[in-house]
Amino acid sequence: MQNQAKLYQMFMNYLESNAFQNKPHALYEPINYIMKLGGKRIRPILSLMAYQLFKDDVEFALPAALAIETFHNFSLVHDDIMDEAPLRRGKPTVHTKYDSNTAILSGDVMLIYVYEYLMQYATHPNLGKILKTFNEVAIKVCEGQQYDMDFETREDVQLSEYLKMIEYKTAYLLVGALKIGALLANADQKDVEHTAAFGRNIGIAFQIQDDILDSFGDPAKFGKKVGGDIIQNKKTYLVLKTLEQADENTKSTLQHIMSSTTTDEAAKIQEVKSIFQEWNIPQLAEQKKQDYQDQAFKHLAAIKVEQVRKDQLAQLAYALMGREN
Amino acid sequence: MQNQAKLYQMFMNYLESNAFQNKPHALYEPINYIMKLGGKRIRPILSLMAYQLFKDDVEFALPAALAIETFHNFSLVHDDIMDEAPLRRGKPTVHTKYDSNTAILSGDVMLIYVYEYLMQYATHPNLGKILKTFNEVAIKVCEGQQYDMDFETREDVQLSEYLKMIEYKTAYLLVGALKIGALLANADQKDVEHTAAFGRNIGIAFQIQDDILDSFGDPAKFGKKVGGDIIQNKKTYLVLKTLEQADENTKSTLQHIMSSTTTDEAAKIQEVKSIFQEWNIPQLAEQKKQDYQDQAFKHLAAIKVEQVRKDQLAQLAYALMGREN
Repeated sequence: MQNQAKLYQMFMNYLESNAFQNKPHALYEPINYIMKLGGKRIRPILSLMAYQLFKDDVEFALPAALAIETFHNFSLVHDDIMDEAPLRRGKPTVHTKYDSNTAILSGDVMLIYVYEYLMQYATHPNLGKILKTFNEVAIKVCEGQQYDMDFETREDVQLSEYLKMIEYKTAYLLVGALKIGALLANADQKDVEHTAAFGRNIGIAFQIQDDILDSFGDPAKFGKKVGGDIIQNKKTYLVLKTLEQADENTKSTLQHIMSSTTTDEAAKIQEVKSIFQEWNIPQLAEQKKQDYQDQAFKHLAAIKVEQVRKDQLAQLAYALMGREN
Repeated sequence: MQNQAKLYQMFMNYLESNAFQNKPHALYEPINYIMKLGGKRIRPILSLMAYQLFKDDVEFALPAALAIETFHNFSLVHDDIMDEAPLRRGKPTVHTKYDSNTAILSGDVMLIYVYEYLMQYATHPNLGKILKTFNEVAIKVCEGQQYDMDFETREDVQLSEYLKMIEYKTAYLLVGALKIGALLANADQKDVEHTAAFGRNIGIAFQIQDDILDSFGDPAKFGKKVGGDIIQNKKTYLVLKTLEQADENTKSTLQHIMSSTTTDEAAKIQEVKSIFQEWNIPQLAEQKKQDYQDQAFKHLAAIKVEQVRKDQLAQLAYALMGREN
């Protein structure tokens, strides 16, 4: 079994050796750019770790790991156009560095290459299951992105809808990464389902935590600008929970603040945070996150392999959740 | 064996019965819109005809036909954003009717559904070959689109590069439609290759004819505005052939005209057409088109099935080529 640092290194070497040399240059160069932009490579590592739950020849899962990471980056390239995001990991986004047409077309090619990478398992007995799993995941991720965009202009978003949106947009790709790893290792069906459910719950927990940290994180440790969601009037878990819990007066105050733009960003952030705290929202959100995390670990525990094989997935999940601890 | 009219009707019924009811509405409604916008449905019919070369239960090929038509429409949706095209088949393009973000994301989902439709053949012995064929085709179509965009800003495009571009952008999807039909019918490898080569040659011939008709077609019969390529300064087969054949003087004149915009469109069209005629370009282009068409029919003739099974493909090809005759 390889540890996380080794899996990261194996994946990075594989990524490097699969950099595109193809023509036309204008189509493939942006793909190399975004794929090398960095990141913790959590999703491909999850694929490798899921495979390692059941089998030791982890190199076998590298094409699947590359497929998952390529899909993730495809979705970033297209989402960044839609969100008009200038920066990604501190560097220009693809549509900023090149142009939107390039970002559209290079993204399209990336999506096709995801399937091309998966076709390296053309003779695998689980090929059909792997492709169907991937299709379902990819569709859900797009649906999640659409729900997220729909929510921007809706005033009546329910907490249950929000949880479904983050499940689709964020958690499903973790499900895909883990499930495909387990399917490649020919795990039995129950173990495959537990591996997938671990990813689903960790993914939702992770997004709730991201919402909490956006308001209450340590600026030195949180990767993004603290209060960014508040400034952008995003309907996060904290906002929707407040709208569900608070009295009518507080609800209208919050809705008013959230429908405005301001030049005094620090004051707006402080005002919204005070409302959250007044209604005990950080604690309620923390509890919800903990519930999903507990569920995740129950599923991990239920996978029928030795504990030592699961430890690295548990550690990775704790590391993701404990960014602030 | 079903005739072309019957195949069209079968396909349209299948398309209708596969219209999306899924949520979110904002994601799927534009897909239904573009898929029902019309067109001759040449590509899915080619898939069905290729299947019928070898087998009679043509319903079996309907999911593949839908996959091909969905991919074609996906490429139209994304290309129309890139080309800033307001209309498609006389109706608003998806990014015009909705917006660019919708067109990007709905297009992405269409591309994923192509694979989902193909997964209806999950247990087919040729599944691997079908998916690899489709991946190759889809990548080539995107590369062709990139070459086409690259050519807009290049002054040194060679005729050989242009032929490669139209092969990728236009002909390859016909190759894919036909080859996948033949693979589904378990045709032997040589017959699959001849079926594919028929499509490749017909596709290139079709695009050269389209270039000829743009300048010399009958406005009443040509579906697009005659002279449109000239007004847009497009580097068509006729232009590139002239630049290859003509003297230095004519070349600079043509290059000068083609680097300008004008308010007198009719005069510009007439001037360029006169140069084409002076250098015998329409006849040379017609000959080139005929060469590809002859090649296509040689490959059709080489397929080892009774002539009666091939007649409808021959008729369809003649109908495509003889739009003006």
